[in-house]
Amino acid sequence: MFASVTETGTKLLSTFDHRRARELCVDILRQADIHVGGDRPWDITVRDERVWARILRDGSLGFGEAYVDGWWDSSQLDVTIDKLCRARLREHVKDSWVLIAHAVKARLLNLQTPTRSFDNGQHHYDIGNDLYEAMLDKRLLYTCAYFDGTDDLDVAQTKKLELVATKIGLRPGMKVLDLGCGWGGFSAFAAERGATVTSYTVSKEQVAYIKDKYAHLPIDIREDDYRNASGQYDAVVSIGLMEHVGPKNYRPYFELVDRCLAPGGVGFVHTIGGNKTTAHIEPWFDKYIFPNAVLPTLAAMIAAMQGIFIPEDVHNIGEHYDPTLMAWWKNFDAAWPRLEAKYGSTFYRMWKYYLLSCAGGFRARETQLFQLVFTRQGTPAPVGRRGF
Amino acid sequence: MFASVTETGTKLLSTFDHRRARELCVDILRQADIHVGGDRPWDITVRDERVWARILRDGSLGFGEAYVDGWWDSSQLDVTIDKLCRARLREHVKDSWVLIAHAVKARLLNLQTPTRSFDNGQHHYDIGNDLYEAMLDKRLLYTCAYFDGTDDLDVAQTKKLELVATKIGLRPGMKVLDLGCGWGGFSAFAAERGATVTSYTVSKEQVAYIKDKYAHLPIDIREDDYRNASGQYDAVVSIGLMEHVGPKNYRPYFELVDRCLAPGGVGFVHTIGGNKTTAHIEPWFDKYIFPNAVLPTLAAMIAAMQGIFIPEDVHNIGEHYDPTLMAWWKNFDAAWPRLEAKYGSTFYRMWKYYLLSCAGGFRARETQLFQLVFTRQGTPAPVGRRGF
Repeated sequence: MFASVTETGTKLLSTFDHRRARELCVDILRQADIHVGGDRPWDITVRDERVWARILRDGSLGFGEAYVDGWWDSSQLDVTIDKLCRARLREHVKDSWVLIAHAVKARLLNLQTPTRSFDNGQHHYDIGNDLYEAMLDKRLLYTCAYFDGTDDLDVAQTKKLELVATKIGLRPGMKVLDLGCGWGGFSAFAAERGATVTSYTVSKEQVAYIKDKYAHLPIDIREDDYRNASGQYDAVVSIGLMEHVGPKNYRPYFELVDRCLAPGGVGFVHTIGGNKTTAHIEPWFDKYIFPNAVLPTLAAMIAAMQGIFIPEDVHNIGEHYDPTLMAWWKNFDAAWPRLEAKYGSTFYRMWKYYLLSCAGGFRARETQLFQLVFTRQGTPAPVGRRGF
Repeated sequence: MFASVTETGTKLLSTFDHRRARELCVDILRQADIHVGGDRPWDITVRDERVWARILRDGSLGFGEAYVDGWWDSSQLDVTIDKLCRARLREHVKDSWVLIAHAVKARLLNLQTPTRSFDNGQHHYDIGNDLYEAMLDKRLLYTCAYFDGTDDLDVAQTKKLELVATKIGLRPGMKVLDLGCGWGGFSAFAAERGATVTSYTVSKEQVAYIKDKYAHLPIDIREDDYRNASGQYDAVVSIGLMEHVGPKNYRPYFELVDRCLAPGGVGFVHTIGGNKTTAHIEPWFDKYIFPNAVLPTLAAMIAAMQGIFIPEDVHNIGEHYDPTLMAWWKNFDAAWPRLEAKYGSTFYRMWKYYLLSCAGGFRARETQLFQLVFTRQGTPAPVGRRGF
């Protein structure tokens, strides 16, 4: 977000002119309808005046870190972030040297190599099942739910699974490949409906969980990188994987799906999407939450499948991620008393910043959730068409 | 379709080895399950043996021209073309010098300039209203219908209009801009439901038709290029325009929609789409049916709107163009006795080749029909969401 601000910031910092730093930030926040020291729930309370210099030096990374350190606060953080996004302050962030450094890193290195993706998965998903069990729905679905006529997270996650099932034409006897299966929520849903499922995850904890909980179901669970998948399936599904795939691997991803799809098969992707092509996510999220993740644009994914698959259906359900994240936040906050001893108080503010700022970003439609259905040319009739 | 064939063809032609030309073509057709002289409805009957040399020299252009000249025939032309497409013979056509010449022309010149688009529109749409009245539904909708639980063209076209209305959230009092309005079918549908509509077409005949037929409705009809549209509207719609816009104009197209959309407005595009990026359509269609048209790919359109609009929904209803074209063909064929004197017998075969080969192309999923819904970032809730 912090604009051309960071440019100006570098100069300002050399003189440590805190007063001018403060004035500059306060003015920008006011343009976004956020008052420093105001009493509306989304206004900002400052607890450490060094926050302004930190924002000017480190941009959005410093903004997030300063929040976690308790230097500033907001009693409705999601609304604060929503307003910041809407004010389109983030648009100018491309000038920031922090982001430039990230962009160069991402362009020079193909960060999502098979070896690294183990680290990525482990960093986030192996934190501890107890945290996710407290925060998520009963199936531990860690992706956007579908709040279609409900405000209950469990119901909304079931509706999401039904939506995916409809789109891929799920039926008994179907062979399904689930790439990046998480805690196996969709794999189990499909297996319970008569499909045989092969599922990939790089997280040991998730593999152990699935082997234990779904031992009675025909799920072949593999602790392996999705790129090592083989065989022939009637549907190849990934729900929340593409964010970790990386732009250089979109084409190989679709080539892999092509190799694994039986004739007449259907491909399905569910992923968070960005509005513009970038080679990085917000640096705070890159550092603390999802290292090396990149939000794909729809343009990049559609371009990557061209000549291999025909796009059948694209559905942007980003509006549903706002209530999903707010439900996760409520669950996490309620469970905190029994999590605190293990995770510590800094984790609480980090996790709160993660969940609520994401909710604000989806509310402002800064980020999207795309569901894509695609088939090979030659598939006579698309499956799972909508009922408009 | 005619493959590496045209390369070989050039050599062959220099010696006028008709026997080898025939052998080569017959073999390729057999691979597509089409027998020359066979008795299945999709098999090919040859009436002039010069057809083989013509195909080898002129590729798909020669194939179409030879059909119109009566040199070959098929009693189920749509199935013949479907089989040719499925055999993926067309994939190799990129080597053809004919297509290379077209590609160069399209790349060097921006063929859809405001002046030229008058010619384009006039060429096709001013042929005569009598022809279209005989062939199309009662509203003269000259775009893909939506055969959702019906096999009646009139009903399917109404369902298409309802589908568009749902997607843009059509409501009384709405201001709608209809770019490339054809004979005003959608404009009238929207106006009858309480919208006020401004509509653009470059066809004099269409303007006269709309002024006469819809004089009682709030439709402001303009005989002008879509690029001259101005004002602020709640929805900007184009149904069957994008095929004539040209790849260099996709970005300016979305910029125009951005200028004309009121805050919270919704953009909608309905267009035939190609599977791969090309700078030309099939040369026979370029020469005889839609001069200078280009089938946009979804990748090109999504890339062109990036940073201006958020893609909300993409719906590929290409499967519905097959029955649409077959219904047009049946209507045209039935009406031919009263059209023949005016249009002449060559026109009959040309039009038949146009309609039936298009039907075959859609059936083989060589071509698509994309409906796109898009909004500006900041639009809080997308309109007209599907009811899965």
